[in-house]
Amino acid sequence: MATDTAFIGIDWGTTNLRVWRLTAQGDPLDSRASPQGMGSLSPAQFAPVLDDLLSGWPTDLPVLACGMAGARQGWVEAPYVPLPADAPALAHGLVAAPGDRRVLIVPGIAARDAQGHLVDVARGEETQAIGAAAPGPGLLVCPGTHSKWIRTDGARIMDLQTFMTGELNGLLAAKSVLRHSIGGPARPDAVFRQAVTEMLEGRPLPEALFSVRVQSLDDRLAAKDAASRLSGLVIGAEIAAGAARFGLSPVRLVGNPLLVSLYAPALAQGGYDAVEVIDGDHAVCRGLAHIWNARP
Amino acid sequence: MATDTAFIGIDWGTTNLRVWRLTAQGDPLDSRASPQGMGSLSPAQFAPVLDDLLSGWPTDLPVLACGMAGARQGWVEAPYVPLPADAPALAHGLVAAPGDRRVLIVPGIAARDAQGHLVDVARGEETQAIGAAAPGPGLLVCPGTHSKWIRTDGARIMDLQTFMTGELNGLLAAKSVLRHSIGGPARPDAVFRQAVTEMLEGRPLPEALFSVRVQSLDDRLAAKDAASRLSGLVIGAEIAAGAARFGLSPVRLVGNPLLVSLYAPALAQGGYDAVEVIDGDHAVCRGLAHIWNARP
Repeated sequence: MATDTAFIGIDWGTTNLRVWRLTAQGDPLDSRASPQGMGSLSPAQFAPVLDDLLSGWPTDLPVLACGMAGARQGWVEAPYVPLPADAPALAHGLVAAPGDRRVLIVPGIAARDAQGHLVDVARGEETQAIGAAAPGPGLLVCPGTHSKWIRTDGARIMDLQTFMTGELNGLLAAKSVLRHSIGGPARPDAVFRQAVTEMLEGRPLPEALFSVRVQSLDDRLAAKDAASRLSGLVIGAEIAAGAARFGLSPVRLVGNPLLVSLYAPALAQGGYDAVEVIDGDHAVCRGLAHIWNARP
Repeated sequence: MATDTAFIGIDWGTTNLRVWRLTAQGDPLDSRASPQGMGSLSPAQFAPVLDDLLSGWPTDLPVLACGMAGARQGWVEAPYVPLPADAPALAHGLVAAPGDRRVLIVPGIAARDAQGHLVDVARGEETQAIGAAAPGPGLLVCPGTHSKWIRTDGARIMDLQTFMTGELNGLLAAKSVLRHSIGGPARPDAVFRQAVTEMLEGRPLPEALFSVRVQSLDDRLAAKDAASRLSGLVIGAEIAAGAARFGLSPVRLVGNPLLVSLYAPALAQGGYDAVEVIDGDHAVCRGLAHIWNARP
């Protein structure tokens, strides 16, 4: 029976939609994907877009969706659950989506300070964190457009910090004066490592960024290497700030192969010498199953 | 005779072109401006654009131009002069532009490290620095798209640091997720001062930026205040890094009124309690005259 479909899991991000037929343990039996992310949809479009992507799968399978579908501008708002949060707390906050199909939306998580002020939020990463949980205290790093560092204690999410690293890197590379210097993608090479080192040594990011331009004017930084230097600066700045905030401890790194190829060596440079790489899809599917099984 | 036109001064920036009829002391007798900055011109277009803007002024007046007209992608390249640099050194590096009119281009300045590697550059700010010079050691702050901090000793330019503050602020406000939070311009108000304080206390910029989004989700930061918070974060980060690099000392602040209204109180918060505000046009005109009079 463990190989039967228990439910359909969904990760509905801003720019992507991915669906899996999952066993009760979160093992994927089948998957599909679409570029119809939340960012391009009005609330009324979610149900038909999903029906379209799921066509041919049994229509009576229940659905559990995490990610931006639960944002205020998404399908239906699933209000943030406060930290600390675990699978039962997230399951308690599930919100049913409107429509014929039985769809539940996973809430995001919110960190508040001692005065009750919101200090950080995440949607989607809470499910990855639940899926990637391990016994004892842990630190999860989820690089991306908005990188999330998540402190866990066993299967409980304790704390959270967002870094706008991917968005900053993308804007600087494509839209700033640095675009003239850049030809080609970032690689985890000596140029990247040197930039990471400078930031770990405490160089302020606002002071460091223009060096990409200057070194390229000097013909010291080739166009093919400039993206490596820029990525090293912004990722190095993230790791320096993350280490100051959360300290050194074993890290689980959840992301796509390109980001993992940059963050894994940069984390090692930063003193994180025990980095376990976890596949993002695997973490989402496992997390969805934990939340599914924790429903009240 | 001191009220006669000695030469025409030009500040030819990336997005703007401004010209003045100047006395030998750099007092402006007349001025004109055009949006035909270097960024929108091919080398062959500079001479006719200038002829057009100067129409009606005597064609035999000599011309001295500073700014991006001397960049590699400009009218004619005026190679960077190494630091330390003063008016005679800049005058020695003047390059004649092609065409019928007698036009000289002021070179930029370049800071190099002990190994001879280029570490920073400026074009245009060298002329402002010469024009704003005062006896003894000094620190000049020129906020803008690429803010420049310039250490001077009397009329000599000693050191230089660029911060991409204005460009970072503009990209984040217009193109990042933070754009959803922002409605209205930045003001030097309590929200701005609070953000500056956070950065001066050592908060890393990569960690702080997402707070604009989070506080706006929390309804704690009104749309009308979000630009003030973002500006306070990036300007505060610049001042924290600039102070670490150059130390505290009397500052001369050269910029437009909006930037001065933000930087003057932020510098004061950072411990710069002697800030003298200098009009940017005045500094350029004075600097052009010093360089003009120092010609070999």
